[in-house]
Amino acid sequence: MYRTHTCGELRATHLNQQVTLSGWVQKSRELGGMTFVDVRDRYGITQLVFDLSKNAELAQLARDLGREYVISVSGKVIERQSKNSKMPTGDIEILVSYLTILNKSEVPPFTIEDNSDGGDELRMKYRYLDLRRNPLQKSMELRHNMGIEVRNFLHKEGFFEIETPYLIKSTPEGARDFVVPSRMNANQFYALPQSPQTFKQLLMVAGYDRYFQIVRCFRDEDLRADRQPEFTQIDCEMAFVERDDILNTFEKMTKHLFKTVKNLEFEYEFPKMAYDDAMTFYGSDKPDIRFDMKFVEITHLAKGKGFVVFDSAAYVAGIVATGCAGYSRKETDQLTEFVKKPQIGAKGMVYVKYETDGTFKSSVDKFFDADALKSWANAMEAKPGDLLLILSGDKTQTQKALCELRLEMGERLGLRNKNKFAPLWVVDFPLLEWNEEAHRFFAMHHPFTSPKPEDMDKFDTNPGAIKANAYDLVINGVEIGGGSIRIHDRELQAKMFNALGFTTEEAEDQFGFLLNAFRYGAPPHGGVAFGFDRLVSLFAGFDSIRDVIAFPKNNSGRDVMIDSPSAIANTQLEELFLTLKKPQNLK
Amino acid sequence: MYRTHTCGELRATHLNQQVTLSGWVQKSRELGGMTFVDVRDRYGITQLVFDLSKNAELAQLARDLGREYVISVSGKVIERQSKNSKMPTGDIEILVSYLTILNKSEVPPFTIEDNSDGGDELRMKYRYLDLRRNPLQKSMELRHNMGIEVRNFLHKEGFFEIETPYLIKSTPEGARDFVVPSRMNANQFYALPQSPQTFKQLLMVAGYDRYFQIVRCFRDEDLRADRQPEFTQIDCEMAFVERDDILNTFEKMTKHLFKTVKNLEFEYEFPKMAYDDAMTFYGSDKPDIRFDMKFVEITHLAKGKGFVVFDSAAYVAGIVATGCAGYSRKETDQLTEFVKKPQIGAKGMVYVKYETDGTFKSSVDKFFDADALKSWANAMEAKPGDLLLILSGDKTQTQKALCELRLEMGERLGLRNKNKFAPLWVVDFPLLEWNEEAHRFFAMHHPFTSPKPEDMDKFDTNPGAIKANAYDLVINGVEIGGGSIRIHDRELQAKMFNALGFTTEEAEDQFGFLLNAFRYGAPPHGGVAFGFDRLVSLFAGFDSIRDVIAFPKNNSGRDVMIDSPSAIANTQLEELFLTLKKPQNLK
Repeated sequence: MYRTHTCGELRATHLNQQVTLSGWVQKSRELGGMTFVDVRDRYGITQLVFDLSKNAELAQLARDLGREYVISVSGKVIERQSKNSKMPTGDIEILVSYLTILNKSEVPPFTIEDNSDGGDELRMKYRYLDLRRNPLQKSMELRHNMGIEVRNFLHKEGFFEIETPYLIKSTPEGARDFVVPSRMNANQFYALPQSPQTFKQLLMVAGYDRYFQIVRCFRDEDLRADRQPEFTQIDCEMAFVERDDILNTFEKMTKHLFKTVKNLEFEYEFPKMAYDDAMTFYGSDKPDIRFDMKFVEITHLAKGKGFVVFDSAAYVAGIVATGCAGYSRKETDQLTEFVKKPQIGAKGMVYVKYETDGTFKSSVDKFFDADALKSWANAMEAKPGDLLLILSGDKTQTQKALCELRLEMGERLGLRNKNKFAPLWVVDFPLLEWNEEAHRFFAMHHPFTSPKPEDMDKFDTNPGAIKANAYDLVINGVEIGGGSIRIHDRELQAKMFNALGFTTEEAEDQFGFLLNAFRYGAPPHGGVAFGFDRLVSLFAGFDSIRDVIAFPKNNSGRDVMIDSPSAIANTQLEELFLTLKKPQNLK
Repeated sequence: MYRTHTCGELRATHLNQQVTLSGWVQKSRELGGMTFVDVRDRYGITQLVFDLSKNAELAQLARDLGREYVISVSGKVIERQSKNSKMPTGDIEILVSYLTILNKSEVPPFTIEDNSDGGDELRMKYRYLDLRRNPLQKSMELRHNMGIEVRNFLHKEGFFEIETPYLIKSTPEGARDFVVPSRMNANQFYALPQSPQTFKQLLMVAGYDRYFQIVRCFRDEDLRADRQPEFTQIDCEMAFVERDDILNTFEKMTKHLFKTVKNLEFEYEFPKMAYDDAMTFYGSDKPDIRFDMKFVEITHLAKGKGFVVFDSAAYVAGIVATGCAGYSRKETDQLTEFVKKPQIGAKGMVYVKYETDGTFKSSVDKFFDADALKSWANAMEAKPGDLLLILSGDKTQTQKALCELRLEMGERLGLRNKNKFAPLWVVDFPLLEWNEEAHRFFAMHHPFTSPKPEDMDKFDTNPGAIKANAYDLVINGVEIGGGSIRIHDRELQAKMFNALGFTTEEAEDQFGFLLNAFRYGAPPHGGVAFGFDRLVSLFAGFDSIRDVIAFPKNNSGRDVMIDSPSAIANTQLEELFLTLKKPQNLK
């Protein structure tokens, strides 16, 4: 038997018991004739003590233990001389009478401590050692617990978890698919699902009423910081529902998670904000509403005073940085540099200091007198002591830049506390987005999203103005989930494909099975999908989803630990009827 | 609002309430001026009634409803004239005052009844209609409930569910991999996991102590009746355990499932049978022990009496069919035909009828007198009235054929009751299997399985005789789960790869990450994986796992509903640096 207890279990109540523990050597130290060894497992750390004067051979064996050796010990639980109130096992230690080394360890390439000294690449290569660190163990435990809570909540609400296939069919609409060549069907390919969208809709057609699945999804995209080629969704669908039935169900689920996992109660209904308002006041469809600092447009006040920057701008708007009138030249310069960064793209920034004595000092004093500045301050509801930050130019670009400036100011003012959570439903998204390059509309959400009933007639007159019956759950500026009421009518679905530039044949070829299913009694239905990785990392307070994924891939889509992807054998290629083509830029 | 209640909810206690229901038209019938419509959803069926004399327009609309139309109705709950005690809602009906058609339906290609009239191909093509049938809805509900119970049980036992990657690395050992070409890493491929084996072992190295995952696995094999290219495992691993720790934990889990899902209690410990005994007494490593009928070898009694069939056989053995001495010539002929089928492969069968009067009648009376036959009957513990069925030949082939004959007799005698469950642990499997074609040993379980400590020295002398610390859970002759104590020592793992004919370079190239991980303190560990599809179909009483998978593939690995796999666009092939090769046998 390897253990009677875990390394996190023993307390003063166990004094004088004979116990056996197994685990990893966290560290050891010597003090006179005594050797103290901390042994660690998933459950905690327990101090072992060896007395050279009592058992020299055993104590010598203990002295030779290296970090991360796997050991098993037996001994008596005794009271600790110097108690450690920070450790749950800090009242006791084990006076060891038997020690065996189960496995040795070489010196790890980085230490297994909360703050490791390994760089990112090294930590990825030795992920099995990185995963020994306490923050990652806590993160995996949190993820597990959130999965359990999601499942039990949805089970109680009458949802069935139903597994949908991973080997499906490639469709050109949407992001790029990963494909899987078929050996039994020569020259044909499966695709890995970007989401189980059509399958969950078919389950509604099949009468399952309430479906969910915690499911892996795949997208072959060029990876940005917070993207992974495979990621996990909480995927849900309900039949015979209207929008608010879905929002209520999943608001309840979100509150359940906050309550059970973080012990946070939300006694209010999550606010709902129209997409248009989110863009007008925050320049983003995922506003961080932990703090206010709404955009105020002052185009009408700012133009026509001879300041060519404003006069040539389609849009002038600003935000109020409360209590920041005292910012130094260096600080305002930093902000100007910030907005001029290429990824933000503003040409410059105008600031107005509304001094505590009621006077104004601005970067555009030459063009605007105190009355003019006062009118801005009034429009923006600024008070003496506040700093006004103003951007101008093309409306969309300026809103985007102002959004970044607002988040930066929120950060500087400490308004983006990771322990505060501000959920928000963003609703009434546009149905279609015009793509200049492809010269056609694309679905903003996906091609199965229902338009709002009152906008049906705009398909022929002004498709770009149609609002979708779609919604996102945004928490702290992160899009956590999104969904929509779906189209369940064959004619409307055909109209939608037509608006997206599909010929009837293309629609039939790619989605014929869904259009066919709609012939046989499809119920009204809708759903939502949550990004599980993002939700866990939000709850964990991590910035990257990598820290909540056991074995993530790097930015090139590589798993550097197992060295994948890799070459495969020629016999495999032959069986799959494939030949490799050398890329141009490789030798 | 689409409904106030589901179609399975209303009872006599709801009388006189105004309600709204939505669902599918199951069937309708007319009786005088009354129209009765059964409306169905996942939760049940409710009878609607329309009275032509009271509301002619509404009744006419109801008369025009077709099967599978999706409707929403409002009305009053009234007492039913002729109650139906077989239906939970059979005491009531709805006197409808409002009816709307949410979606029409064409006539489905087969009826949505418990026993459908659709053939297999048609049912697969219209799987969303097949899934409306009650047996499949019950099957999906059972699967969901079993998933919930597995997760909650393992959660309480301290296991974490940890997601492992689906895009991993191809390894030639084992079955054939599905591969996924990488766009970002030209000419390289990911593989889809056949199981998360190495990842769960790395999680043990990483200190997670108890891991599980309900996870999809992939094997590109030529499909047999009960195989799917993607299937689901309950995958588990534990650290600091010996074999019986694992068996105890998962026996407890299995009992928990029987108790919570089928309300069956097992008050005894599951029996354990050595692999050698399973082969000796049942000719199979997955014996169906719902009935006894063990093999009895009578080689020593049967040889040397001038019967050339036996005299030339290495092995003569039989089973006793209790009470079957009265079998007709036709019946014994049928059994002879059965064992001579090519897939069973016996050359013939000898029978001995032990008549109720104590005399013997056999197909080999010419060679064996009553005393000889009596000695067989004694050895086989047969009683008057029993039938002895005897096969002979090469030992392994004969055992295999006798196993099939035993199962056939069990079937004929009604000993394989689907509502009786007989679990069994088969233990002490051989570690290695000699493959004549490849002229080398293969791992019987997989290359990470630990040999039994007492057999360690046989690596150099007699590798084929090494027993593995491996085990299978068999229920009713179906292998439900299997696992082993793993190798956790780098040297032993290298020895194992060597026994499998890997060069050091090959081992390093394919499993270097695991061998490396063993350098840094790998704990003793072991685990098990259950075939979730098989477990559910066993519980559901289905013969095929297809009936417990929402969207299965056919025997060619095709999803005929979505028509996958399929051709992909040339641009996709180009991005992946691939060209297609025409197979020889295609034009």
